[in-house]
Amino acid sequence: MTDIARRGTARTRNLELVLGEVDRRGPLTRAALAELTGLTKTTVSTLVAELMAAGFVAESGVVRGGERGRPGVAVGVSGARMAALGIEVNVDYLAVCVVDLTRSIRLRARVERDNRDTRPVDVLRDLRSLALDLVDQARGLGLTVVGAVVAVPGPVEDGLLYTAPNLGWREVPVAAALDLPLPVDVDNEANLAALGELWFGGDEPDFLYVSGEIGIGAGLVVGGALFRGVHGNAGELGHVVVEPTGPPCRCGGHGCLEWYAGQDALLRQVPGGLTDLVGRLRRGEQRALGACASAGRALGIALTSAANLLDLDRIVLGGVYVPLFPWLCPAVETTLAARLGRLRRSVPVVAASRLDGEAAVLGAAGQVVQRVIADPGRVGHVV
Amino acid sequence: MTDIARRGTARTRNLELVLGEVDRRGPLTRAALAELTGLTKTTVSTLVAELMAAGFVAESGVVRGGERGRPGVAVGVSGARMAALGIEVNVDYLAVCVVDLTRSIRLRARVERDNRDTRPVDVLRDLRSLALDLVDQARGLGLTVVGAVVAVPGPVEDGLLYTAPNLGWREVPVAAALDLPLPVDVDNEANLAALGELWFGGDEPDFLYVSGEIGIGAGLVVGGALFRGVHGNAGELGHVVVEPTGPPCRCGGHGCLEWYAGQDALLRQVPGGLTDLVGRLRRGEQRALGACASAGRALGIALTSAANLLDLDRIVLGGVYVPLFPWLCPAVETTLAARLGRLRRSVPVVAASRLDGEAAVLGAAGQVVQRVIADPGRVGHVV
Repeated sequence: MTDIARRGTARTRNLELVLGEVDRRGPLTRAALAELTGLTKTTVSTLVAELMAAGFVAESGVVRGGERGRPGVAVGVSGARMAALGIEVNVDYLAVCVVDLTRSIRLRARVERDNRDTRPVDVLRDLRSLALDLVDQARGLGLTVVGAVVAVPGPVEDGLLYTAPNLGWREVPVAAALDLPLPVDVDNEANLAALGELWFGGDEPDFLYVSGEIGIGAGLVVGGALFRGVHGNAGELGHVVVEPTGPPCRCGGHGCLEWYAGQDALLRQVPGGLTDLVGRLRRGEQRALGACASAGRALGIALTSAANLLDLDRIVLGGVYVPLFPWLCPAVETTLAARLGRLRRSVPVVAASRLDGEAAVLGAAGQVVQRVIADPGRVGHVV
Repeated sequence: MTDIARRGTARTRNLELVLGEVDRRGPLTRAALAELTGLTKTTVSTLVAELMAAGFVAESGVVRGGERGRPGVAVGVSGARMAALGIEVNVDYLAVCVVDLTRSIRLRARVERDNRDTRPVDVLRDLRSLALDLVDQARGLGLTVVGAVVAVPGPVEDGLLYTAPNLGWREVPVAAALDLPLPVDVDNEANLAALGELWFGGDEPDFLYVSGEIGIGAGLVVGGALFRGVHGNAGELGHVVVEPTGPPCRCGGHGCLEWYAGQDALLRQVPGGLTDLVGRLRRGEQRALGACASAGRALGIALTSAANLLDLDRIVLGGVYVPLFPWLCPAVETTLAARLGRLRRSVPVVAASRLDGEAAVLGAAGQVVQRVIADPGRVGHVV
């Protein structure tokens, strides 16, 4: 804990209030901040001086100063001193990125590799090297990395990756194993990809992000915030029941969406890899088109249940669904329209993710930024 | 708007802050309030005086005063001056209740009647009489009813009951039609029943409330707050797909849960009414037991999808599922355990609602109380 956090609740809340306004609205004068927060100008000046000394904010030029319209020196979030590290381990790749407090992407790295049936210790050692290398590079840019979040392809409870069946991992303490010299949190990749889409991919505040990989996860954003459920494991779309008497699934259920529309399901019907499937679709091969249409129908059925439960207006398809979107989307849309037309006023719009493979790692870094802004006292080694 | 609301944001926020602390924590001294809010004692005294004059709070005896432990006069939410009206129109009954700001139930009335295929104007005229009668009775107790919420069995958008298929109603402006001399909002009965269960039925902060009526709705409570979705229409559990090629549903879909586990579905298989069905179950009649078991299995399949999407620990069955609970619950639990055992750390607990038929109308009144506490400036005719 820093001095900022120690000195009592009202002051801490006021620091959060000032930093929050500047983050949400962009650069503001001290006078405008006083009007917006209801604090006195003297209090605001003291708070701004502290936030500035700690590197959260910087003066950023002259702007109009709130309701009275007088020009003044504006204070904005600073991108020069603190940064956040995003880390992702997924079935086919490792990825890392550095984002500053203004959410500008400053550094990124990605290694394609097959992580199926690997030992966590081997994969996480390589991921640690990638992460430390980026922290060093960030230092060269004058940036202190104040925290990291790791995106993992499975449910996380109390910081533990409970299970990642497609990696063959079970109960892995990812943060401890990475052993980085900074605070590290772990979260589900679909949750983080949804947040990445929110912060870096567009400006819609309400959507369900569907992460189509070997498994199928989803992250629900409502009013610009991620819906996590009680333990952070909401959005297990891949195990929504499509056909109650269907084939058994590794989750214990039967006829789960994953069996009908996951990456393995798509490739099961058409030999070759994902790139090969896209080539066949481009050439109009019937079997490839059929595989996409039937996956799209299953996705449409699961998304019908999701739309009824979650009240969806907009569905963003990510991961492997991005290259397959032109062939997958019509079947999804037709199924949704047929099943949702009467009860709801409108059928959800279906769109492809604008971030492709980077949504989760960007969301991971963005999550660190959110936490720093929401609770400046938490950043341990500042001040 | 009142004087309270007009005088600028900081003061309004401070009033909300003080009232919120007193509501959440129970009676507090002014000194304790100053410590909790970070406001000066003078400011707290001024705010308390205003809240007291307006009837939101009252002095309620001597208690220990915050960290320093000195005794002082405590200020608590007042149950003596303001009250909230809960109103419900459902397929089989009309109900009204009055709850004071401490959430004590002060008055209630209920009329059993069949509202299927009725004209909204006729039903709402009778409901208006019931409501006005309770407002009069409340006045006799010294209570001013400051607002009402109406629970309706269908999705609501922008205050309009979009459709209530089991009443045969479509696009009904319920609040305007009731024409009560106080602010009236409208909300879905499953949402309000979930809130009723939260505020009046127990103290668990996380659960899915399932409202089993002719239709099947659900309300999700996470961290003590209702999850509404984008338009307030989350929780349409009755239209989660149980069997994709099943019978057509009035929603446009096929094989929806409602067809397998709604009240009509249960009674379709066993002649007679609900009371008759319970009698047959008590006597161990095979056909009745079979109907309950198959409804329970369908409910279990839909709740498997819901648990995967919403991250559920606890499921509360309400409405007609309360009298049927002993016979329905085993099939629900068995289905959930078989399908959810491996991916999640635990299978959700299934319980019966403790409020039976009153959850929605109590939730409606409770919603008014929440709004008054959260935003004291909104109560128009006070001060």
